[in-house]
Amino acid sequence: METMRWENDTLVLLDQTRLPARVEYIHCKDHHQVAEAIRNLRVRGAPAIGVAAAYGLVLGLGGKEFASRGELLARAKEIARELQLTRPTAVNLSWALERMLRRLENTPGDPAFLSRALLEEAHAIYREDIETNRAIGTYGRELIPPGARVLTHCNAGALATAGYGTALGVIRAAVAAGKEVSVFADETRPLLQGARLTAWEMLQEKIPVTLITDNMAASLMARGGVDLVMVGADRIAANGDVANKIGTYGLAVLAKEHGLPFYVAAPLSTVDFSLAEGKDIPIEERDPAEVTHLAGQPVAAPGVRVWNPAFDVTPAGLVTAIITERGVARPPYRESLARLKSVVGRQPPDVGNHPA
Amino acid sequence: METMRWENDTLVLLDQTRLPARVEYIHCKDHHQVAEAIRNLRVRGAPAIGVAAAYGLVLGLGGKEFASRGELLARAKEIARELQLTRPTAVNLSWALERMLRRLENTPGDPAFLSRALLEEAHAIYREDIETNRAIGTYGRELIPPGARVLTHCNAGALATAGYGTALGVIRAAVAAGKEVSVFADETRPLLQGARLTAWEMLQEKIPVTLITDNMAASLMARGGVDLVMVGADRIAANGDVANKIGTYGLAVLAKEHGLPFYVAAPLSTVDFSLAEGKDIPIEERDPAEVTHLAGQPVAAPGVRVWNPAFDVTPAGLVTAIITERGVARPPYRESLARLKSVVGRQPPDVGNHPA
Repeated sequence: METMRWENDTLVLLDQTRLPARVEYIHCKDHHQVAEAIRNLRVRGAPAIGVAAAYGLVLGLGGKEFASRGELLARAKEIARELQLTRPTAVNLSWALERMLRRLENTPGDPAFLSRALLEEAHAIYREDIETNRAIGTYGRELIPPGARVLTHCNAGALATAGYGTALGVIRAAVAAGKEVSVFADETRPLLQGARLTAWEMLQEKIPVTLITDNMAASLMARGGVDLVMVGADRIAANGDVANKIGTYGLAVLAKEHGLPFYVAAPLSTVDFSLAEGKDIPIEERDPAEVTHLAGQPVAAPGVRVWNPAFDVTPAGLVTAIITERGVARPPYRESLARLKSVVGRQPPDVGNHPA
Repeated sequence: METMRWENDTLVLLDQTRLPARVEYIHCKDHHQVAEAIRNLRVRGAPAIGVAAAYGLVLGLGGKEFASRGELLARAKEIARELQLTRPTAVNLSWALERMLRRLENTPGDPAFLSRALLEEAHAIYREDIETNRAIGTYGRELIPPGARVLTHCNAGALATAGYGTALGVIRAAVAAGKEVSVFADETRPLLQGARLTAWEMLQEKIPVTLITDNMAASLMARGGVDLVMVGADRIAANGDVANKIGTYGLAVLAKEHGLPFYVAAPLSTVDFSLAEGKDIPIEERDPAEVTHLAGQPVAAPGVRVWNPAFDVTPAGLVTAIITERGVARPPYRESLARLKSVVGRQPPDVGNHPA
């Protein structure tokens, strides 16, 4: 099952709003279709929407004639802006689009050559995302004790990335290394990515998974049913504050209360070094109908007011470690994340001060 | 809107599984129908199922000829057992049935007279429940600061009782006393009693209410959007540990983390003085389909294993106060609850040591 693929000048996206009931692909032939797919969560997950947006930029420029480099560059910036405005929180979207624009600016040649270079760059972002996730898995699996019962939230799996996944990639890597791991998946209201996507991915891989509603996590921890929490991220500030799917912050508080490690698995492209702290991360608020309706049916008292933030921010102080493709960052994160950013290639698994 | 009423030798129950889409009443003519309604949550909420079970016992004995008191008493015990087995956690069920059986045993007379006495007792339990809730409201409203933003979970309203409600009764009483109060209602998965019932009750009373998913409560608190948490209870151990709808314990942890008061509003009939601690409270686990399906539609990956406890236990140490019809109990609860039980009539509003 592929989250997306490039085929005949078309971005073919698995429509995740239809999962698990139906496995349907949508064929995006222009960037408006890609923007629609991102906005409506047909493709979701910070790394995946970065990759999709990169291909969206290719599609936006495709089949057009440009009189000059300047004309093409100006149009590319317009398209990138449209794609970037689809969702505000995940930084991978702007990270991927900026990388694409930089490639354009740094590549000499005529417009036709630039378009080919742009497609190469999108392919590179796609490939690197999978490699990145495998590296995250390699570092992260060391943190998973044999027999671990891992609680995860939302979907930070293959479906949230070009492939393999971040938080679920760590679990995959631990299982591949021969460890017994079982997963508890928060269903993750309102859009049920845990129930629909994480449970589905784990069932496909035959990794034992138990579904709970979000409000059961505390009781499960109190009974000693969880050994660690592992989640993904949509944006990480330079100090290690983590924006992720709504409900993540509550889990982090509960993990602290029960003395459990709380791990975040994310590529360095999710770290926004331009933001000092999490309070500056924009939090998307979405349509109240996501809460009041399910599969088109009303599930709440008609006319009730709704607050529907899609993400929350977990303070760095609640995060035990951040697992990246270049190693595991430990507090203080301002230093450990910056060190991982500045180096090239793989690092020893752990960077930073170890609290234990 | 009445939760239930007695009419023409029939218990007429509002079918809460249909709310808010439809306001439908079911007409119970025997105790099997009442047991079905309790088991399937057509009537729910600890006080309400106690009252319904009392009427169920009346229905079970109604229209029968008994040769002797002994025969009637034996049959009454059989019926009470069937009603009590419907749901294990709420203690009000056994409290009401034991009270009914005690009335039978203590009333002299022939079987026909006993049946009339039993109906009187059920009416008394019904009436007293509403009076109790009004008294809880009178004590509890003192704990609500003007302008308070109150977070509540599940439905501890008129629909969970014979009328007026416990946690929502306190809010009603505060509003009736002229205080501005606004409510945040957790939707309360899996069965959405917050979205369907609490939101609906508050909208009917024109008390401002905002619906959130359960996993948004933490973020709302972190933003300073909540002043206090107010919930009901299904069973309270002698030491003040509180069993209530799944998710309550997590809210209590979050309230502590954010320095917010966490109040429980419940009648003394919810306190099980025979249980020393909350760990001895039986926790009902319900059908996985409650989590995997919604309105008959699948919402999760097919075949996923589910853990679906209906309640959790909040340790007394996380409970700021327990509001009863005889006053407000403060820690240590073993002493303060026992003192409230032992006295007759109203007490000064606060009993026990004040932590502040």
